[in-house]
Amino acid sequence: MIIDKYNQRVDKVNSLVCVGLDSDFEKLPERFKTMEFPQFGFNKMIIDETVEFAAAYKPNSAFYEARGTKGLIELEMTINYLKKAYPDVFTILDAKRADIGNTNNGYVTAAFDFMGFDAITLHPYLGKEALKPFLDRADKGSIILCRTSNPDAGELQDLVVDGKPLWQTVAEKVSKDWNTNNNCMLVVGATYPEEMKRIRNIVGDMTFLVPGVGAQGGDVKTTVEAGLNFEKKGLIISSSRGIIFAEDPAAEAKKLRDEINKFRLTSS
Amino acid sequence: MIIDKYNQRVDKVNSLVCVGLDSDFEKLPERFKTMEFPQFGFNKMIIDETVEFAAAYKPNSAFYEARGTKGLIELEMTINYLKKAYPDVFTILDAKRADIGNTNNGYVTAAFDFMGFDAITLHPYLGKEALKPFLDRADKGSIILCRTSNPDAGELQDLVVDGKPLWQTVAEKVSKDWNTNNNCMLVVGATYPEEMKRIRNIVGDMTFLVPGVGAQGGDVKTTVEAGLNFEKKGLIISSSRGIIFAEDPAAEAKKLRDEINKFRLTSS
Repeated sequence: MIIDKYNQRVDKVNSLVCVGLDSDFEKLPERFKTMEFPQFGFNKMIIDETVEFAAAYKPNSAFYEARGTKGLIELEMTINYLKKAYPDVFTILDAKRADIGNTNNGYVTAAFDFMGFDAITLHPYLGKEALKPFLDRADKGSIILCRTSNPDAGELQDLVVDGKPLWQTVAEKVSKDWNTNNNCMLVVGATYPEEMKRIRNIVGDMTFLVPGVGAQGGDVKTTVEAGLNFEKKGLIISSSRGIIFAEDPAAEAKKLRDEINKFRLTSS
Repeated sequence: MIIDKYNQRVDKVNSLVCVGLDSDFEKLPERFKTMEFPQFGFNKMIIDETVEFAAAYKPNSAFYEARGTKGLIELEMTINYLKKAYPDVFTILDAKRADIGNTNNGYVTAAFDFMGFDAITLHPYLGKEALKPFLDRADKGSIILCRTSNPDAGELQDLVVDGKPLWQTVAEKVSKDWNTNNNCMLVVGATYPEEMKRIRNIVGDMTFLVPGVGAQGGDVKTTVEAGLNFEKKGLIISSSRGIIFAEDPAAEAKKLRDEINKFRLTSS
């Protein structure tokens, strides 16, 4: 199972931390902006400094696409560097894709075969049948948006369907029906710990990608207590700006790892 | 309003046809595959042959991303050619994006500023607040997925919320709340004409992007009768494979235009 790769890395570095490579060109330190490959140069520095504390890396495609082909080249350089230098690190393309059936083959090829990411984030709105090209790839992770971290995530996600919110229906569908290849995960924002607790009860040990700690306001203790599975894993806790644009990214990554572990290793 | 650009082009060529540039490299005629820029070479041929019958063009990003930076370069060449050679043609990037708030700025920059498309397709699952960077661009179109054309679109979209299907709630939200800049449109598949008729009744004259005629089985007469607005417009009827991989793409585009007009111009 693809999640084994993540879990083995978690054990190796004793960390549930995912570093979000939201490497917005405008926000890069000046010394990188003048490089031939500024986003890659910055990412390589961040990766090398934080990798001993990180189980996963997650570039968000939007920050690369914003620079057209130049950005895409640097995204490709970043994933190629990760695969070569740190092949046991789990890699996620945060691209939030989903088209109808066969068209998704293009995204499957791009993310999994061309670039070689371990997993990708996906919208659920078109249903299982549309996502089949992703779900059929048992060797790769499909991370479905369930409860997103943004302030008004509830506008659609809280709508009540058969007495329960839409996000709960998505969690149930993914865990009971979409996950036949044991390759599904869910996006569950740290900013909604009550929902996270309920989703954990629905989906068993399925792993959550958890954005929203740090800059977005999610609390580490609450998140860990709400979301851990019975193996004291089951969470990919992602911090982006809070680590990559910090004065000392390695110290921030270590601090997040240790804070998570404080609650993770004492939780009952 | 951005939709004025579409409507003016509709009047000029007397056509509601959108040509979907789903230019899958594997499916290109052999003579293009050996070119330096096969997807662009093919698209240029298709555009030049069909433009007198087309109001809009819609490349689907997946088919270009599948080839990495090479494909993205050809997508950029395609939109640049369209803008230069046929500036009054309406252009849609079918990318089905949506991230949380600020991250969407990357996609806005990529689609609207870097490439210069007139509109983009978007997922609704994260809500209006997340889509704000798109919706704030009054000069560009936000085309929200409402009722998609795929066979099991109903898995989520038919879920009943407050006595009505989710797609209806999306249509109501977009028309009553998200459309403050008069730049929203909806994706409504030709494969669901009953739903299209109900959506037309909800949203007034809002324009629909309509995939699903031709290869997917949507019927032209039913679509036109269900979806026209009171100005006998309001539909961007997209055909991809049925036109671009036809023996004679121009003849197919003309045939679709004329078939649409047969029902459009006689409908009451």
